[in-house]
Amino acid sequence: MNKIRFERVLKEMEQAGIEQMLLTNPHSIHYLAGHYEEPWERFWALFISSSKEHCLVSNRLFTLDEVNGIDILWYEDGQDACRLLCSRIDKNKPLGVDDGLKAVSLLRLMELNAAKSYRLSSFCVDKVRARKDEEELERMRTVSHINDLAMAKFKELIHARVTEKQVANQMLDIYRELGADDYSFTPLVGFGANAAAGHHEPDDTVLKEGDCVLFDVGCIKDGYCSDMTRTFFYGHVDEESRKIYETVLKAQLAAEKAIKAGMVLKEIDQTARKIITDEGYGACFTHRLGHFIGREVHEKGDVSPVSEILAQPGMTFSVEPGIYVPGKVGVRIEDLVIVTEEGAEIMNHYPKELQIIPVS
Amino acid sequence: MNKIRFERVLKEMEQAGIEQMLLTNPHSIHYLAGHYEEPWERFWALFISSSKEHCLVSNRLFTLDEVNGIDILWYEDGQDACRLLCSRIDKNKPLGVDDGLKAVSLLRLMELNAAKSYRLSSFCVDKVRARKDEEELERMRTVSHINDLAMAKFKELIHARVTEKQVANQMLDIYRELGADDYSFTPLVGFGANAAAGHHEPDDTVLKEGDCVLFDVGCIKDGYCSDMTRTFFYGHVDEESRKIYETVLKAQLAAEKAIKAGMVLKEIDQTARKIITDEGYGACFTHRLGHFIGREVHEKGDVSPVSEILAQPGMTFSVEPGIYVPGKVGVRIEDLVIVTEEGAEIMNHYPKELQIIPVS
Repeated sequence: MNKIRFERVLKEMEQAGIEQMLLTNPHSIHYLAGHYEEPWERFWALFISSSKEHCLVSNRLFTLDEVNGIDILWYEDGQDACRLLCSRIDKNKPLGVDDGLKAVSLLRLMELNAAKSYRLSSFCVDKVRARKDEEELERMRTVSHINDLAMAKFKELIHARVTEKQVANQMLDIYRELGADDYSFTPLVGFGANAAAGHHEPDDTVLKEGDCVLFDVGCIKDGYCSDMTRTFFYGHVDEESRKIYETVLKAQLAAEKAIKAGMVLKEIDQTARKIITDEGYGACFTHRLGHFIGREVHEKGDVSPVSEILAQPGMTFSVEPGIYVPGKVGVRIEDLVIVTEEGAEIMNHYPKELQIIPVS
Repeated sequence: MNKIRFERVLKEMEQAGIEQMLLTNPHSIHYLAGHYEEPWERFWALFISSSKEHCLVSNRLFTLDEVNGIDILWYEDGQDACRLLCSRIDKNKPLGVDDGLKAVSLLRLMELNAAKSYRLSSFCVDKVRARKDEEELERMRTVSHINDLAMAKFKELIHARVTEKQVANQMLDIYRELGADDYSFTPLVGFGANAAAGHHEPDDTVLKEGDCVLFDVGCIKDGYCSDMTRTFFYGHVDEESRKIYETVLKAQLAAEKAIKAGMVLKEIDQTARKIITDEGYGACFTHRLGHFIGREVHEKGDVSPVSEILAQPGMTFSVEPGIYVPGKVGVRIEDLVIVTEEGAEIMNHYPKELQIIPVS
């Protein structure tokens, strides 16, 4: 177990008046207990108590042997893990539960009268995970550096008559050659109008001259994720698309520059959104500016018009404004950043100025 | 929407006395409504009511446009989707909820007094999904056929001094060349003692003469999954390993042969387990015999020593006995099968007799 992280979580629990909680997010359990388990449909949980009798609830089939400093409650298929856990929960007190705890477990705990009441409490861990420590930041920099190198290679995949799928299918090998373990998410590759569609998946669309080429891509290494977007143009760029690109870039740069420890994150979103709105594209920027990232590609916390989170050193998130004109063009530019005492450290260094890929 | 599937689910609900239910498993929603959405942290649900006022709850950012015959309740980031849904739920009646409904939504619905009570009800859909229709079976056969072809190619990757990771990293390209869309799960590649460790991940272990080589692999095509295991030996096989292999094979064949519509699934597990136990390896067969499979690689339903499920035509599951001797050797042989009126259709045809790969 990581004692420093545990202490930080216990402090958050104390401040929130939560004396006991049940954590089921496998990434959060890994973060605290040092063991990652993909439990599929089986129950896997870390019970944290301010009286310090923490325990893991683990199926005998899991890869776990032991965890320094944490007791393990073992169960087998067919046994009732929730009932087992009742021996540890103080039933006269509220129980904090993970936001993602499944109804099958929550309703069972309720049926067993496991606790006085149930209260969402993932935030006690999410707040701690949001501020990365130095070891984590080093991994985030490394995996973003790989993403920079990969983007240069992805650009080389663009040529006449290539399809989105043909490009996307080559990306994993490139990531692996560069030392990544896997994708952090399935790559988004969008040509022309497809770049304007929210969550378009790479398909058999063939590249045409004048198309924008949007790559929203990321990889994972040593348990940490990268995520970057660049938008190229193939052959030439029409005037409106150029204006859109320059507007997104201006908004992206201004947002990164605006970041300061202590500010409210919605202000960063507003900085970018104002620039886009002033150019008349406010309705075409259809999503939040950014999301937190680390062990998971989307972690709790966002940079949206309503985010009241205070920027604190060590927070890592994306800054990714976009303008989408349905049926025509989509442009998004995204970097990952770390909040620092002085401002922000930008983790991506792949160029952001408009690049037109010559027709081959 | 698929009316026949909907009718079958409504019938299950009626039998269980459930008049309204909330489905959140994206595969189940896809199965019924015909649209797949990966919602990440956002809320995505299908509300099914016996009074037939079904609706989808969808974020504006999702890729959904419309679904024939189902109303869509749209919400935006920052809006309370659960409160929106309350307008459709009859609060004087119990609400069936998905086993996987997250606590963040369930506790919110409770807070809003959305229903009289809450009851797990995924089984109303899972029971229907368990019996594949002809269109689904055809896809299952196709994707298992690809897996057969892939296994032959994976065997060719075995040569002197190769590592598990080197083998595993070539598998996705092979699947794609054969027409698959992706893995159905990360391949398990285990050499020697690694094959005996439950969920071992491919690592830098180098192949040695006399090692067993376990491949537990699967791909996905058109939304349906394959899953097969074969165990080879490299160079030679020692006497005990040969005995283990023959025992697993005998158990696997006997289990497949035992399948009959109308029988209780635990009997199939017991058929295989008895053979392994009689040879003295009962304690080394550490898992259930099989799991249901279809749109998801693990679907609800298993073939375990305690499974009371009745075999019905159209059910598809794995038959995968194994013997694991810690620190030494692991053997597992797995096919996918379809229950038929007469017995079982075996979907995998890659040979199962012991194969010794010559030292290269």
